[in-house]
Amino acid sequence: MTTTDRSDDVTSPFRWRRGRLLDDVDAGATPGFEGGKKAGYAVLAEHGAELSELQERLFAHGRTGGTRRLLLVLQGMDTAGKGGVVRHVVGMVDPQGVRCRGFGRPTAEERDRGFLWRIRRALPGPGLIGVFDRSHYEQVLVVRVDGLEPEAQWRAHYDEINDFEAEVAAAGTTIVKVMLALSPGEQLERLTSRLDRPDKHWKYDPADLHARRQWEDYQAAYQEMLDRTSTDVAPWWVVPADRKWFARLVVGEILLGALREMDLGWPPADFDVAEQRRLLTGG
Amino acid sequence: MTTTDRSDDVTSPFRWRRGRLLDDVDAGATPGFEGGKKAGYAVLAEHGAELSELQERLFAHGRTGGTRRLLLVLQGMDTAGKGGVVRHVVGMVDPQGVRCRGFGRPTAEERDRGFLWRIRRALPGPGLIGVFDRSHYEQVLVVRVDGLEPEAQWRAHYDEINDFEAEVAAAGTTIVKVMLALSPGEQLERLTSRLDRPDKHWKYDPADLHARRQWEDYQAAYQEMLDRTSTDVAPWWVVPADRKWFARLVVGEILLGALREMDLGWPPADFDVAEQRRLLTGG
Repeated sequence: MTTTDRSDDVTSPFRWRRGRLLDDVDAGATPGFEGGKKAGYAVLAEHGAELSELQERLFAHGRTGGTRRLLLVLQGMDTAGKGGVVRHVVGMVDPQGVRCRGFGRPTAEERDRGFLWRIRRALPGPGLIGVFDRSHYEQVLVVRVDGLEPEAQWRAHYDEINDFEAEVAAAGTTIVKVMLALSPGEQLERLTSRLDRPDKHWKYDPADLHARRQWEDYQAAYQEMLDRTSTDVAPWWVVPADRKWFARLVVGEILLGALREMDLGWPPADFDVAEQRRLLTGG
Repeated sequence: MTTTDRSDDVTSPFRWRRGRLLDDVDAGATPGFEGGKKAGYAVLAEHGAELSELQERLFAHGRTGGTRRLLLVLQGMDTAGKGGVVRHVVGMVDPQGVRCRGFGRPTAEERDRGFLWRIRRALPGPGLIGVFDRSHYEQVLVVRVDGLEPEAQWRAHYDEINDFEAEVAAAGTTIVKVMLALSPGEQLERLTSRLDRPDKHWKYDPADLHARRQWEDYQAAYQEMLDRTSTDVAPWWVVPADRKWFARLVVGEILLGALREMDLGWPPADFDVAEQRRLLTGG
């Protein structure tokens, strides 16, 4: 993951392939990167400039009638580092071009209207990067594990989600779905740290313990989610997340790869540049 | 504006006082700061850490039932640097806590529903920082200068805006209104630069020339806007903007002052910390 590597080379190990077992993912590993934390942040910062320029091109594209946009979906167990990815990776680009949205428990109205209703409303507009901290995938995760719907009902969501994402992708959205893979041991440390620090108490929710006790059920739910919804137009990336710096570095590379693939130039002028220059200096 | 100065000391020259003339503001000056560009950015970066922490406190407050929030309104002539303030100042804090919104020409529906309708819908939720790139103030600026409404109608907007902002402030919103004061000479350079650089063409709008030719009319409109709508609960700040670094530095200090004034601590735990620690390590 030196600065001359192509991001698709360095990120390819993290792209989900059917048949793989989530249990085989080593959450503490840093495959493809030789350095440590300091070197990782240095690469991230260095690539931030390109990330920022490509985001501006996307924004410019949207401001001049283009329809392309990008949606980053973040999933993972509590404390997996979703918020940190937003702050440290997404935070490197212009906030004007970013729409962040977190999805907690749905309201009564949101439940009534179907689980994709609030998701559709939160999709990024042209030229924007949308970021979902949790998403429609909770409908096959917490809903499944906590038995909030009968099995036949949540099972139907896989196809519904694939149809929905195919439609969203066809409308010009590059979809990047990232699952941050955390180990139970690292989660214990992070939850303990939240309890130890009064400035972190607001991030702690006793309900997190409930989910922690269902770890194996969540692993099974994630496994099936990955197998059923990693499609060509909306692939999943599974990123080892026990080391925050590594997860941030990899998500940065994945985003960079997605933006590079859009291959957007600067929009051409839709006015006569020479004439405007005359009018400007003459007026 | 050294790092030990209180931000209310360094920002006070920019707080609008009735009776002042906008024509007397020197857009190229850097009052209160001895250093140059490099020193300015160094102070901004240094204060970024506190800005970021105070923003996180505000966010935490919103996530635990608090109602406080902050609205930053940016106004100024084309190329005054509103976008740069968003990128370089607002960009220092966590994007999850920020909602940016630009206001262009209203749609037919937006016009039908009254000029404050789309503004109300874009107000930040609890714990968030909302940023308006242009705003409801266009209703007493472009609408006035281009004669889009009869005088009696746009004149009524001053009181409507004051009533609206008083209501918004009473609901827990700290309102920070910044006018970036640019000189016509500097605008000429910036517009010329946009014409010279193909990567900036998308930012150039031939309509900007139209507004430029009405400079004096805009100055009069801004003057009256400042005099009529700079209130105790929603004061205007007029910031010299010919030097981008200085405008960014000052807006950063103003935001810092506003967040400090909120005086928010970290929300206390609403659970029994010791019990959770037992459950966590025992489970």
